[in-house]
Amino acid sequence: MRSMKIIVIGATGTIGSEVVRALAMNKHDVVRASRNGDVRVNLDDPATIRAMLEKVRDVNAVISCAGNAAFRPFADLTDADYELGLRSKLMGQVCLARMAKDHLRDGGSITLTTGVLAMHPMQGSASISMVNAGLEGFVRAAALEMPRKIRINAVSPPWVKETMVKFGMDPASGLAAATVAKAYVAVVEGSHQGKILDPGRLDG
Amino acid sequence: MRSMKIIVIGATGTIGSEVVRALAMNKHDVVRASRNGDVRVNLDDPATIRAMLEKVRDVNAVISCAGNAAFRPFADLTDADYELGLRSKLMGQVCLARMAKDHLRDGGSITLTTGVLAMHPMQGSASISMVNAGLEGFVRAAALEMPRKIRINAVSPPWVKETMVKFGMDPASGLAAATVAKAYVAVVEGSHQGKILDPGRLDG
Repeated sequence: MRSMKIIVIGATGTIGSEVVRALAMNKHDVVRASRNGDVRVNLDDPATIRAMLEKVRDVNAVISCAGNAAFRPFADLTDADYELGLRSKLMGQVCLARMAKDHLRDGGSITLTTGVLAMHPMQGSASISMVNAGLEGFVRAAALEMPRKIRINAVSPPWVKETMVKFGMDPASGLAAATVAKAYVAVVEGSHQGKILDPGRLDG
Repeated sequence: MRSMKIIVIGATGTIGSEVVRALAMNKHDVVRASRNGDVRVNLDDPATIRAMLEKVRDVNAVISCAGNAAFRPFADLTDADYELGLRSKLMGQVCLARMAKDHLRDGGSITLTTGVLAMHPMQGSASISMVNAGLEGFVRAAALEMPRKIRINAVSPPWVKETMVKFGMDPASGLAAATVAKAYVAVVEGSHQGKILDPGRLDG
């Protein structure tokens, strides 16, 4: 596998930090981007995405492990809750894809993060399920029109053990962040196009 | 089948007018709502949705056959194009569902419109596929939390013959609007919950 220059957005997060670690182990040149890191980016603010892509050059791939959305009972979700998910996790990542397609090197790749709630909702997930499913629809469609052999895909993590512990849930049914990270590496090093990857089924 | 009072939004449109016709044939009391009709509503403007629901009382079901989104090559889609789909077809219908759940009679139903591009994209559909898929994610999730036995579902029309003719396309592969309308009637009169119905597979 040739070494690639890869930006990871959300590099300090639960999943992002494991993605950084896994990519580095495969000898890739990893640029860590986050809201407070050396390379600053906030997916909610398109100007910071553009500034990042203009600052970091000759990039092969960009991975987003970022984006927020509100998890609340349907009856309690406010306009602002919906707006958060639309602006951050959905359009923040869509904006990244729109800009990255013009900045990445030929044959580069864009990998976004959706989540299991897109197709398997639970009580409280109306906004998140909407945002995740919308992002998956976008990825499938945008893949048909990517220029210069650029690829676009999404990873759809299940519940992550570390996140479940943080929320006081039983982590038994979750997947470790380090295992989830393998899906991102597989997509970046692979030839997937327009795919939504389930990290729990990489070997399945 | 008992007669129901049903609001149809987009009642003058290609699909909506056939839905109105089909519901009336089954002896339902149909309230026709549209941007310029007797009962005025514009899905892009939440205030008009609230006003409609406060004006028309004792409603069993609401059906949306409305909502806009932009169909353009991915490279040409602007921020405003994405914004149109998010505000109109996605959040317009989400807003309708949020409000209707508090206004409909017990056991009532909400039926929204998504479309085949959610799962089967084509060139030019990045924004529409995102919006339709997002709406489907919302419907699946919101169904888990509907109060008072209210149901929520979506119909996902394929290409409609009448629309294809309007666009100068060969309508051979399309489904007639009157056939599509049968799916809305089936959902409103049925017991579906959180389902996305394909009008081409009703008998399948």
